[in-house]
Amino acid sequence: MQSMNKPHEACGVFGIYRKDGRHGVIPEAYHALYALQHRGQESCGIAINTNGVITCHKDEGLVNDVFTRSVLEKLPEGRAAVAHCLYGPKSSQNRDHAQPMLVNHRKGALALCNNGVLTNAAKLREELEDQGAIFHTTSDAEIISYLVAQERLSCQCIEQAVANAMDRMRGSFSMVIMSSAKLVAARDPHGFHPLCMGEIDGDIVFASESCALDAIGATFVRDIQPGEVVVVSKEGVKTLHCQRKCDSSLCVFEFIYFARPDSIVEGSSVHTARVRAGSFLALEHPVQADVVIGVPDSGLDAAIGFARQSGIPYGIGFIKNKYIGRTFIQPTQKERANSVRIKLNAVRSTVEGKRVVLVDDSIVRGTTSAHIVSLLREAGATEVHMRLSSPPFTNMCYFGTDIGSVENLIAAKHSTEEICKIIGVDSLGFLNVNHLPYLADHSACGFCKGCFTGVYPEEIPGEKVNPICSRPLPTDETTEDNAQ
Amino acid sequence: MQSMNKPHEACGVFGIYRKDGRHGVIPEAYHALYALQHRGQESCGIAINTNGVITCHKDEGLVNDVFTRSVLEKLPEGRAAVAHCLYGPKSSQNRDHAQPMLVNHRKGALALCNNGVLTNAAKLREELEDQGAIFHTTSDAEIISYLVAQERLSCQCIEQAVANAMDRMRGSFSMVIMSSAKLVAARDPHGFHPLCMGEIDGDIVFASESCALDAIGATFVRDIQPGEVVVVSKEGVKTLHCQRKCDSSLCVFEFIYFARPDSIVEGSSVHTARVRAGSFLALEHPVQADVVIGVPDSGLDAAIGFARQSGIPYGIGFIKNKYIGRTFIQPTQKERANSVRIKLNAVRSTVEGKRVVLVDDSIVRGTTSAHIVSLLREAGATEVHMRLSSPPFTNMCYFGTDIGSVENLIAAKHSTEEICKIIGVDSLGFLNVNHLPYLADHSACGFCKGCFTGVYPEEIPGEKVNPICSRPLPTDETTEDNAQ
Amino acid sequence: MQSMNKPHEACGVFGIYRKDGRHGVIPEAYHALYALQHRGQESCGIAINTNGVITCHKDEGLVNDVFTRSVLEKLPEGRAAVAHCLYGPKSSQNRDHAQPMLVNHRKGALALCNNGVLTNAAKLREELEDQGAIFHTTSDAEIISYLVAQERLSCQCIEQAVANAMDRMRGSFSMVIMSSAKLVAARDPHGFHPLCMGEIDGDIVFASESCALDAIGATFVRDIQPGEVVVVSKEGVKTLHCQRKCDSSLCVFEFIYFARPDSIVEGSSVHTARVRAGSFLALEHPVQADVVIGVPDSGLDAAIGFARQSGIPYGIGFIKNKYIGRTFIQPTQKERANSVRIKLNAVRSTVEGKRVVLVDDSIVRGTTSAHIVSLLREAGATEVHMRLSSPPFTNMCYFGTDIGSVENLIAAKHSTEEICKIIGVDSLGFLNVNHLPYLADHSACGFCKGCFTGVYPEEIPGEKVNPICSRPLPTDETTEDNAQ
Amino acid sequence: MQSMNKPHEACGVFGIYRKDGRHGVIPEAYHALYALQHRGQESCGIAINTNGVITCHKDEGLVNDVFTRSVLEKLPEGRAAVAHCLYGPKSSQNRDHAQPMLVNHRKGALALCNNGVLTNAAKLREELEDQGAIFHTTSDAEIISYLVAQERLSCQCIEQAVANAMDRMRGSFSMVIMSSAKLVAARDPHGFHPLCMGEIDGDIVFASESCALDAIGATFVRDIQPGEVVVVSKEGVKTLHCQRKCDSSLCVFEFIYFARPDSIVEGSSVHTARVRAGSFLALEHPVQADVVIGVPDSGLDAAIGFARQSGIPYGIGFIKNKYIGRTFIQPTQKERANSVRIKLNAVRSTVEGKRVVLVDDSIVRGTTSAHIVSLLREAGATEVHMRLSSPPFTNMCYFGTDIGSVENLIAAKHSTEEICKIIGVDSLGFLNVNHLPYLADHSACGFCKGCFTGVYPEEIPGEKVNPICSRPLPTDETTEDNAQ
Repeated sequence: MQSMNKPHEACGVFGIYRKDGRHGVIPEAYHALYALQHRGQESCGIAINTNGVITCHKDEGLVNDVFTRSVLEKLPEGRAAVAHCLYGPKSSQNRDHAQPMLVNHRKGALALCNNGVLTNAAKLREELEDQGAIFHTTSDAEIISYLVAQERLSCQCIEQAVANAMDRMRGSFSMVIMSSAKLVAARDPHGFHPLCMGEIDGDIVFASESCALDAIGATFVRDIQPGEVVVVSKEGVKTLHCQRKCDSSLCVFEFIYFARPDSIVEGSSVHTARVRAGSFLALEHPVQADVVIGVPDSGLDAAIGFARQSGIPYGIGFIKNKYIGRTFIQPTQKERANSVRIKLNAVRSTVEGKRVVLVDDSIVRGTTSAHIVSLLREAGATEVHMRLSSPPFTNMCYFGTDIGSVENLIAAKHSTEEICKIIGVDSLGFLNVNHLPYLADHSACGFCKGCFTGVYPEEIPGEKVNPICSRPLPTDETTEDNAQ
Repeated sequence: MQSMNKPHEACGVFGIYRKDGRHGVIPEAYHALYALQHRGQESCGIAINTNGVITCHKDEGLVNDVFTRSVLEKLPEGRAAVAHCLYGPKSSQNRDHAQPMLVNHRKGALALCNNGVLTNAAKLREELEDQGAIFHTTSDAEIISYLVAQERLSCQCIEQAVANAMDRMRGSFSMVIMSSAKLVAARDPHGFHPLCMGEIDGDIVFASESCALDAIGATFVRDIQPGEVVVVSKEGVKTLHCQRKCDSSLCVFEFIYFARPDSIVEGSSVHTARVRAGSFLALEHPVQADVVIGVPDSGLDAAIGFARQSGIPYGIGFIKNKYIGRTFIQPTQKERANSVRIKLNAVRSTVEGKRVVLVDDSIVRGTTSAHIVSLLREAGATEVHMRLSSPPFTNMCYFGTDIGSVENLIAAKHSTEEICKIIGVDSLGFLNVNHLPYLADHSACGFCKGCFTGVYPEEIPGEKVNPICSRPLPTDETTEDNAQ
Repeated sequence: MQSMNKPHEACGVFGIYRKDGRHGVIPEAYHALYALQHRGQESCGIAINTNGVITCHKDEGLVNDVFTRSVLEKLPEGRAAVAHCLYGPKSSQNRDHAQPMLVNHRKGALALCNNGVLTNAAKLREELEDQGAIFHTTSDAEIISYLVAQERLSCQCIEQAVANAMDRMRGSFSMVIMSSAKLVAARDPHGFHPLCMGEIDGDIVFASESCALDAIGATFVRDIQPGEVVVVSKEGVKTLHCQRKCDSSLCVFEFIYFARPDSIVEGSSVHTARVRAGSFLALEHPVQADVVIGVPDSGLDAAIGFARQSGIPYGIGFIKNKYIGRTFIQPTQKERANSVRIKLNAVRSTVEGKRVVLVDDSIVRGTTSAHIVSLLREAGATEVHMRLSSPPFTNMCYFGTDIGSVENLIAAKHSTEEICKIIGVDSLGFLNVNHLPYLADHSACGFCKGCFTGVYPEEIPGEKVNPICSRPLPTDETTEDNAQ
Repeated sequence: MQSMNKPHEACGVFGIYRKDGRHGVIPEAYHALYALQHRGQESCGIAINTNGVITCHKDEGLVNDVFTRSVLEKLPEGRAAVAHCLYGPKSSQNRDHAQPMLVNHRKGALALCNNGVLTNAAKLREELEDQGAIFHTTSDAEIISYLVAQERLSCQCIEQAVANAMDRMRGSFSMVIMSSAKLVAARDPHGFHPLCMGEIDGDIVFASESCALDAIGATFVRDIQPGEVVVVSKEGVKTLHCQRKCDSSLCVFEFIYFARPDSIVEGSSVHTARVRAGSFLALEHPVQADVVIGVPDSGLDAAIGFARQSGIPYGIGFIKNKYIGRTFIQPTQKERANSVRIKLNAVRSTVEGKRVVLVDDSIVRGTTSAHIVSLLREAGATEVHMRLSSPPFTNMCYFGTDIGSVENLIAAKHSTEEICKIIGVDSLGFLNVNHLPYLADHSACGFCKGCFTGVYPEEIPGEKVNPICSRPLPTDETTEDNAQ
């Protein structure tokens, strides 16, 4: 339930390069954006390369709103395209911040799409402004465009310019960049966010998640490696790396919440990772109960894992209203209804007279959880035992997860017992932070767990945090106390 | 997956009457429409009674599109309201057919919302035109408005006019009607479609389904009885009945597909009915398999029933893209993708290398099922066994279920074995029509199963069908042949 | 300056009947509506007859807003069409009241467009409701549709039904009515509002004003006579008359303000009539001055007449802002600007240091005139002498001119001297009511001058007014007092 | 008739600086844009300074479309604002090119609005890109923003940075620039396009034309001088100049067509200048005729001058349809109507049987003129004598007048006699180029007449034209041949 006080993250990216123009690229970009829409709903856009000339259409709103039939009909055909959907705080600047960012520089045009957060953005911007740069937005994408344009002045090719620019950047970035002749995909040296490569009709596509490949009928090839730059051109596919080397630190919340369950990230099924989280929860926090239900949609996978491990039957506890859209008017305080009631309704026959295990992915401020629990009580649940498939949020994220200020995090201010009372449950169990690395059983990558531990994979410029640059041992970063 | 060649039905209705104007009626009507949106997405509207003056806003589109903030802000406050969402074939007339139908007659104004289909509409219309009537629409609601207005000329009150009009009507109708002083709810003497009464803050509300009561925090009171007219006014609640008596014949497809799982219809939980359908399927059509999955959203409940009964684990087999809206542009034939792929994606980790039981509610033309099965095959399912929680569609419905022409019904032309080959499954099992009455275990009502049996509860004017007017014995209406 | 407190009138109508479908009718209807837009800006619509099936598109807004490219592309082609633009008070009912009114009755469909006001609407409505009629709108067009449908039950043809219906109607009406096989035009027996017939490519068209014929390249044939019904069908053109006979009483304000200057009404040029009004004014109210200017656009023609007759040079005194549209936000009181200033600007070089004759068509409340005069003073005019090409408004109109309530009419409450002070002019002269019949020099028709004289051509049901049924002598209806 | 193949020019600018925020700036900017809308209809925008933070709203479309009530309600209040309306070729880039251009640089934010064309844009852009600049648009405004940002790095203040930047720019520019603390207005050293200063409530405003001052109730103070930079801040108003000095060369077409007749440009009334042009025409090209008419709206003023000088009566020859908007669908070729007929209609009573003098401002391709002449012929004019208040267009303009390619200019390819035949007139007279300097009788400024003479006030980089840098003697630049 993304709209209900859940952590948010920034953006989905997509790129396609056709050796010839026969098959079209716009339907693929359009359908891929639908498949990536869960990563960002504020704005979206597609840039198309038509014989070297790049055109871009972007605006605030969902794919559904921005790419109407008449817009699609007016887009030129092309041989390559990049596309983007953006998460960002709702503001009047949504339209300005929409990507792809399309700019012209000394060596031509480039259209850039990024997922991530530069931690040294302020410093880079200052350097550029000292050289006379002007900025139209506050978007990292514009800073990166400048860096690439600058590096390109002394480079033979766009891909080397991208690699050089990457060495000046800190933080997270998974990017696709289209020039008049090439398509480039690049991922920060920590590999904070996913980015994968696929193939369709012998042509190359890139996407934030493999579910976008499935949507267009493409085949998954591999993940882009941390620090890698992959370039596609008429000459084929080539790979290079930026100079800077770091240990891999995939954002663990991609598995817990961000990515779609049907995606494969770093070799692991997101669905399976969540089912495993549910199994761990059943082992860590067992309970006597009659039914296990998940909060739709993000708690359903873990609920299945809990049910299987515990032997308690899985049930459908809520129906989610799928018609609530962007313009839904919330009930006001004085209307005494709560908006959770309209978005979710408890299935009375599932929970009435039952001891219920309620599985969700995480808890941020606690308000929504309290409402959900009260729906179950009203529907006749005799006990409610909440289980969360993530450890408690206690720290800021600097790499793309927007969890608001630390003051709002219920787990940063209250003990588990206090939270139980606040949200009205009979018991509460968080996933132990030590189990996080075991969710993705086939993944060789490391993880960033900074929001749970306060220990980050790299220094945050201007912030007094405790960076570590090698993959931390679990015992270093957490204690039993802050895990629950 | 309502948009994928599923049977459709007509309309959700809602009414509210406040003894005083303090609490507002517009937020309640607006939120109830969201809860009833699954019953009709073509158009919607709300009529408000402000000190006896009725204002109406209606248009084609979803609640989300029609009731924008600026529209809601311009609506006057009122003490009573009726609301409607309509299903109908997409056409340029959607806006004309939107309800409530607001008309003025000799004794005042009335706003009418209806769910159902008059089988004697043509005859009634001819009679009225012979008396000089003019029609602005082809909607049954306009015919009913005329009948009520005519009857009202010789009646003391609106509720008696409604009861008299009902005796001239044949077919299905669940209506709410608002006059300047009263709110009336009425249901056809067969009780084809649901209509219930609730209470909020001591005031009365009516709704097609109880999930709309939950959404606004109202308490369920009871179903409106077949043939009953309930009227609310300053004097309180009163009930009367039309003259015509029939056996009750609730559309069984309300339990199988139309109603929301969290609704209670005729005393039975819709969710439970579907779980029971799944259990029957497991008993009727057992199979050796590794996982049971449902087609989202309408196959999920029955899948749970199948899993529980069979002992085969329940899994999440598909992720449904929740961002596909009204303006989504389908892939064209030449783009070689299928739109099912974009709306649904198989969860590979659930089905890969597995023998899969795939549960859905029904099969109409078979095209969508074939696409869904191929998604599973591509994701590595070794066997696919399809189970459907309804008998095969073989006949027309005259009472509101739009299943297209009989020519398009795959089960009307093909044997079960042929269908298996057409949609590419290893086995196929339909629910036995004899088990239909047992889905709703607490319901005293009878059922209409005409679309499965060709035997209808009343004569269809102008159609050579085999009407029966008492509740048929199961053995009368079906044979083993057409049950599968 | 229609939006500035000018009297308003109801509606423009248009009809076209093609013997074959080769030439199209939609572009003609669309362009004719643009030419008639000055007669009504609240809503508009087109109904098209495609092989006997009538489709209608209508909505509130200007032609520009309602008939977008995508709407036009979706309209079916046809062999006949009727179109309408409506003036009416701004309200939430604009969309409901939009015409053509398309209804079905016993003998088929009819689409009706009307310009006028029935004075016995309430009585007719009551009669119809007593027979069980229901009304969707409060529009006269619906009452007329009922009457035609009723008469049609006992008539051989639509045109006779229209003629019979006309005998039951009182007040003003200029109508076009399309059935599945015919196109009918009809005008009330007084001929209050204009309606003319033209020819294009050998086919027949009808329009409220001849300027619509010019716009589509049609040739003017003749005016429809008062009380006449003209019908076009495959058999050609036929004419009949209603039973009721009255003296002709064209609304004189059509010449003064409503009609476009380039139209020919009852044989007279509207432009010439206004120039003649200006000449009369110069003769009646001579003044020593340096320049004659008109208020754009409706005062320009009379200003030329005044200038020619007086010998005082004609000048361009104001520039009108042509970009002020429907959504223009007026300055608020506290912004201290007046909206007249934004809509009009004085041309300083024309009026600075000059004695100015300011010609306008009429004065209603006086507020706008006061603003316009102050613009001239600010621009340096030393004297302002206002001349109005109509007599003072002192009475209600019952036939279509909406001048608000009599209380708001400045001339009903104040003497000419008082008005001079209120609006800040040095002198003020109204056209003498005795000269009205001489404006249209070639017209044989009589005139309704009720709004100036309080003497009306027919009785107004429910109103105590002084009707006369023969054309009044000038000396009967006015005195020097109320002429100024 | 701007939409009918008339020359177009770029943009209107406006700025306001309130010493305190009490009076508001948004209504002033909004209403000023309406008054300047004739200078550009493709896009518009307003940037507001709220306590040093600048917010901008801009989009393609008319003021009416872009600044809806809900947009205006969401704009923050401020103490200063700049606004812009843009003319540009219709394209998908309209939204990107909309101004104000709002950028951030080392010393803060600036919002820039420009009217003009840089002739050295390509060279400047190349220089900037060599230093690593990236460009989001192809707009001159972005180049200028870069120059100002660069200069600002080594300047104490924004106004000096603007002056320094101006010395690097060639071509035409009339700009307003807002920083967080100041408002700057600047005009190129030739003074190609107008820019004036006004006062309202003791505060300073700038506008392209004085008609915008009138619209908001401001008082005209003076024109900004060529090469001048005026800055307003808390310290009051200060003026400085760029280094480069040139002779003044106001675009003479501002007087002939671009500016609104009610504006005062360089001390002369635009209306008077046009009346004088008409008088010159009557002296240069006398004719025996019965009536003088102007093509609305731009030929009306000169028609009055011709009438006064010749003694031939002035008449209203055309009615212009004021409802034709942006979405009007032109008749297609096969509909055989011409769109001129719908936009303009001849007033038959003015021209029938008459010898007509038809005055227009200019002729570009001749197509529209031919249509207009044929309207007069159809309406019965016996002779049509066309008089144009400008010399023939024979050359490109490099400073903002978009007259298409020279190939399309009828006067560049045909003699006056040939044009007579092409457009179907009995005689044709152009204004003699020698008389141009005498149109604006009170102006001390020089004029650019390059489009008529091919002699330009400054060198055009990359073009082989004949620049002269001092004000040319009339005999140098024209001959009798190309004057007609």
